[in-house]
Amino acid sequence: MGDKRKQLHLNLFLMSTGHHEASWRHPNSAPERAVDVNYYVKLARTAERGKLDSLFLADSYGLPPTIKYKVLQGLEPFTLLSALAMATERIGLIGTASTTYNEPFHVARKFASLDLISGGRAGWNIVTSTGNTTAFNFRDEELPDHSDRYRRAEEFLQVVKSLWDSWEDEALVIDKQSGIYADPDKIKPISHKGDYYAVRGPLNLPRTPQGHPLLVQAGASETGKEFAAMAAEAVFTAQNNIEGGRRFYSDLKSRLAKYGRTPEEACILPGFCPIIGDTEAEAREKEQALHELTQIDYGLYRLSNLFGINLAGYPLDGPLPYADLPQTEQINSQKGRHQMFIEMARTEGLTIRQLMMRTASSRGHFSLAGTPVQIADAMERWFAEGAADGFNLMPPYLPDGLDDFVDKVVPELQNRGLFREEYTGGTLREHYGRPLPSRALLSAQLKA
Amino acid sequence: MGDKRKQLHLNLFLMSTGHHEASWRHPNSAPERAVDVNYYVKLARTAERGKLDSLFLADSYGLPPTIKYKVLQGLEPFTLLSALAMATERIGLIGTASTTYNEPFHVARKFASLDLISGGRAGWNIVTSTGNTTAFNFRDEELPDHSDRYRRAEEFLQVVKSLWDSWEDEALVIDKQSGIYADPDKIKPISHKGDYYAVRGPLNLPRTPQGHPLLVQAGASETGKEFAAMAAEAVFTAQNNIEGGRRFYSDLKSRLAKYGRTPEEACILPGFCPIIGDTEAEAREKEQALHELTQIDYGLYRLSNLFGINLAGYPLDGPLPYADLPQTEQINSQKGRHQMFIEMARTEGLTIRQLMMRTASSRGHFSLAGTPVQIADAMERWFAEGAADGFNLMPPYLPDGLDDFVDKVVPELQNRGLFREEYTGGTLREHYGRPLPSRALLSAQLKA
Ligand SMILES: Cc1cc2nc3c(=O)[nH]c(=O)nc-3n(C[C@H](O)[C@H](O)[C@H](O)COP(=O)(O)O)c2cc1C
Ligand SMILES: Cc1cc2nc3c(=O)[nH]c(=O)nc-3n(C[C@H](O)[C@H](O)[C@H](O)COP(=O)(O)O)c2cc1C
Repeated sequence: MGDKRKQLHLNLFLMSTGHHEASWRHPNSAPERAVDVNYYVKLARTAERGKLDSLFLADSYGLPPTIKYKVLQGLEPFTLLSALAMATERIGLIGTASTTYNEPFHVARKFASLDLISGGRAGWNIVTSTGNTTAFNFRDEELPDHSDRYRRAEEFLQVVKSLWDSWEDEALVIDKQSGIYADPDKIKPISHKGDYYAVRGPLNLPRTPQGHPLLVQAGASETGKEFAAMAAEAVFTAQNNIEGGRRFYSDLKSRLAKYGRTPEEACILPGFCPIIGDTEAEAREKEQALHELTQIDYGLYRLSNLFGINLAGYPLDGPLPYADLPQTEQINSQKGRHQMFIEMARTEGLTIRQLMMRTASSRGHFSLAGTPVQIADAMERWFAEGAADGFNLMPPYLPDGLDDFVDKVVPELQNRGLFREEYTGGTLREHYGRPLPSRALLSAQLKA
Repeated sequence: MGDKRKQLHLNLFLMSTGHHEASWRHPNSAPERAVDVNYYVKLARTAERGKLDSLFLADSYGLPPTIKYKVLQGLEPFTLLSALAMATERIGLIGTASTTYNEPFHVARKFASLDLISGGRAGWNIVTSTGNTTAFNFRDEELPDHSDRYRRAEEFLQVVKSLWDSWEDEALVIDKQSGIYADPDKIKPISHKGDYYAVRGPLNLPRTPQGHPLLVQAGASETGKEFAAMAAEAVFTAQNNIEGGRRFYSDLKSRLAKYGRTPEEACILPGFCPIIGDTEAEAREKEQALHELTQIDYGLYRLSNLFGINLAGYPLDGPLPYADLPQTEQINSQKGRHQMFIEMARTEGLTIRQLMMRTASSRGHFSLAGTPVQIADAMERWFAEGAADGFNLMPPYLPDGLDDFVDKVVPELQNRGLFREEYTGGTLREHYGRPLPSRALLSAQLKA
């Protein structure tokens, strides 16, 4: 208990009524509160009570065409996370922002502002956007292709980091007597002119508590994994079983050295949807109840969209039409998930309907129905066997799925010495054991 | 007291240490807290204690080159206002966003999210940006010209409003039984394709408490005033005396009819910097103390920038070099202020130094040093004589300047029946007496 063993990192992937696509229909869920800030405050406080490292908001810039059948994802991340910063004290606050449909100056500044407001708890999930629903809200043009998006992302990130570094730690002088507010020699333009962006800088905010908010990414393609290896300090991934988890883990960790990074510098967090019952039978009943609320029309849409082919014409209880499916290479959106779902259906011999149900809880992430001990066992196994440094928790429905986890699984993990009993640090970087980026570090050493 | 007389509307223009350019050097100000959210929380709560209609954050997307001599303006508006929404209950929260350097989808969505988070207290100060310090943080190009910026603004606003209207009030069905979450027939794409923007929509948030956050603008040029007449529900303006105030007031009100609007539909709020003392002598001493902290280098920079000419070569105690000044037409930035400062210097026969001091408290806005009664007298006079529907309060230094106003001037205004004793509405629109926009109104009538 509380020994110096390496511990898990836990992030709450917070999404309106939960991750099961039918969660909003669950008798205990509150879909009418999907845009109610106080609903999220309560959930964030529960997560904080559970000493979780962070909570995370996914995001896209468009309304899914399935709105008839599925609850809204929630509020806009920068505004919601700033609100949550005021209602919590320690938990990290990770927001998604796309490098394809934003300006680096705005993104650098909003995360800097959130980092200041939250006292060093901000994190950025860097995404390149995945669909035309988003694309058409910005231009009369489809999503740029995958490699173009990642090239843009690389330049975007470089600009954002330079802006965060544009103020030295000691730039603020604030001498009322002499009338010197800041030392202009310690605030430098970045004068960036690249293929995609021209940004002079400097930022109009001083260096923040973390220097750089924590960088998070979830690339699954080759390019995506290289990006993660280069930049990410926490990596989300969707893996539906421990073998896949191990493969991804060693694959990604092995890519870090190329960028002069050690394996510890990127913390790998597979998604995990725990369906918790006091007995295994109860857990299975909970899972079954959710499956029964699942809607075929929505599931067909979701799978058709992923596979790039309309599945409505094929028998539900027959196999995937493998011969008719576009190849992963032709997919411009979520290549990694595309591949995973085809593999899953093939190796497990699933019908369309079975694949739909298998992926309804968590869209292909690892999901397990069991007792708190069984859940903790699985987590410990992934952790011990090199498939995870922690987890991206995806409760199937809320608030119950989170309450159960915090009240029943967290104590079990704490008893095993696998999870903190109290927060030891104040910033998100400290929770994940990540040092401040070098400029701040240097200056902290000089002060000491 | 509390009778049905027409009452003033009061907005707090919240800016780090206050509006006097030397405020950060004042012994009681706290420049080290300019990026501390708790500092703003305290001020917002004071404003709410004073029953003010709203508070407002100005914004620009660049670091002023005068950072050596002048405090930062503060945190980023969307993040800060969302945080303040959690720490206050009734006061309106107005944020600035530029139509020149943003995407309409993001702006529509962030204000919608803020409106949801704050329970209907969001307002948008629509600006077109005013300088290259901002411009060069987005592209390697100067600020677009004034008329282009306003054409862009018009289309931008139209897109944002359409997005806010893209969900009907009754679109959310949320029927767990039938599995229908929303009625897609009540959520419509906007399919906008214009000269500047292509946005398909709909928004990915439902209609918010206010339908449309309150629209605020501060145009001073011909084009700017036409924009205000067409769109703004509250209008900020910089007027250094009551005559100017009256001229602007009747000018702007007379423009409304052209857009099918009555004079009541736009509330005019001149800026006002009250320097409050228990005696007139004390107020004057406070003003003098601030002037003594004013820095010539900063003032020269500010005026040179406004006039589009380097004033450093001219005698400080001589007149403005009228013959050398560019004409207002040649100015691409703040035409209105440019004209006002020239007029002020001419009619009052001011030297460069005197103009610098005259405008140091509030950059040309009306400023008055006096007792609470004298301050209230001036406000009443502007209000009674058709120069103002209320004021954009610009305390010279904070927190004292706000405390004094709330503790000493507000009760005086309340005693005169000129200002509310309690909030009567919950939303920002209600504070300003503005109805919900028509779609929401229609549906509210249908429900009744
Ligand atoms: C847990 C998780 C969360 C994600 N959140 C988002 C998100 O909020 N917005 C988004 O556009 N993409 C999101 N993605 C997609 C990834 O950013 C990425 O595009 C996807 O995993 C496919 O990888 P690739 O881009 O390398 O092909 C998420 C992926 C995972 C696994
Ligand atoms: C009280 C007040 C607040 C303003 N706030 C901002 C601001 O936050 N950001 C900005 O770019 N411009 C701001 N402006 C400038 C106006 O939006 C406008 O550009 C200026 O008054 C000149 O008018 P014109 O654009 O019609 O020439 C403000 C003006 C006033 C009077």
